[in-house]
Amino acid sequence: MRPDIQPVLEFLHVPTPAGWSEMACEQTAVLLSDHANCEKKAASSALGITYRYIGERTLLHQMSRLAREELRHFEQVLDLMEQLDIPYEDVTASRYAGGLHRLVRKGEPDRLVDVLILGAVVEARSCERFYQLAQVLPAPIASLYGQLINSEARHFADYLKLAAQYGDVSGRLPAFLAAEAELIASPDDEFRFHSGVPA
Amino acid sequence: MRPDIQPVLEFLHVPTPAGWSEMACEQTAVLLSDHANCEKKAASSALGITYRYIGERTLLHQMSRLAREELRHFEQVLDLMEQLDIPYEDVTASRYAGGLHRLVRKGEPDRLVDVLILGAVVEARSCERFYQLAQVLPAPIASLYGQLINSEARHFADYLKLAAQYGDVSGRLPAFLAAEAELIASPDDEFRFHSGVPA
Repeated sequence: MRPDIQPVLEFLHVPTPAGWSEMACEQTAVLLSDHANCEKKAASSALGITYRYIGERTLLHQMSRLAREELRHFEQVLDLMEQLDIPYEDVTASRYAGGLHRLVRKGEPDRLVDVLILGAVVEARSCERFYQLAQVLPAPIASLYGQLINSEARHFADYLKLAAQYGDVSGRLPAFLAAEAELIASPDDEFRFHSGVPA
Repeated sequence: MRPDIQPVLEFLHVPTPAGWSEMACEQTAVLLSDHANCEKKAASSALGITYRYIGERTLLHQMSRLAREELRHFEQVLDLMEQLDIPYEDVTASRYAGGLHRLVRKGEPDRLVDVLILGAVVEARSCERFYQLAQVLPAPIASLYGQLINSEARHFADYLKLAAQYGDVSGRLPAFLAAEAELIASPDDEFRFHSGVPA
């Protein structure tokens, strides 16, 4: 097992169900299109933080660099889709991010702590899914996903460290991880990068 | 005169008024805070295009790379403000971008053509202002602005080239350039990076 992935696997309450990975092998176009969307959304979320917290210089720097890295990944997914002649499909958002966003508290610094925890959770799940997929998908996709495992593990750790600078992380994690586990382990009508068990 | 700047100066209908440059030398904190905001907004605009036109691979690639470059500039402005001990002030948006956005047509590909022309116009004005400011501001700011002149000139040319791939640019430019000239040459109550003549 890669050293980077262990803390991520221990962090999440449930592993990706086997049924999801099987579906991912069948629905490559949806998987890659939604993955491309996820990279854009990760960039948008980081950019959103730079609008809201202009007094936090370290945070601004880290979020801006993170957004640039997510955009670089977006370009890599686009390149891969072009190489495999897979069209960029218009894929709606999964229930996942919305389901987690409902937990974000209002008022500061609670909101910021929760948004950063949410970032850590999403990065952890993405990392875990890249790890699973790198073992079952064909070589060109597995190769990119293998590269992304380390980036996502690093983003996960960075988000958690930042969250701890603004509030109580350990008190908030159980709620986020329980909700996340429910979203991943319960039946889901739609197949997406962060969807649950194929219904 | 630098070779890159000439097409930009010829493109715009009016030069930056002397009164604006004088004000910029006095209001450095507002200038840099609003400049930082402009870099984020330029990244957001480019990112917005990547959400809307997923079938246009070249456009997606160019906009993603552009967004990364704008974010890198954002980080450079943050570094400069830190170096000069200038706080990041909460500065409201100027009338400029909104004034130009009013010209964007609905329906495609008209909307895309207009959004790309708008991008070219804003990059051209930013380039021209960096050129003016690099001659009057103190060394650390002038040095960064001197570097940014070439990037903005390149973005200007890239936006125009892209716009021409989707529709009639020469037919739309007069309306955008006339509105832009009015926003720059008329009295403006607020001082901002893209504001008009200080009232």
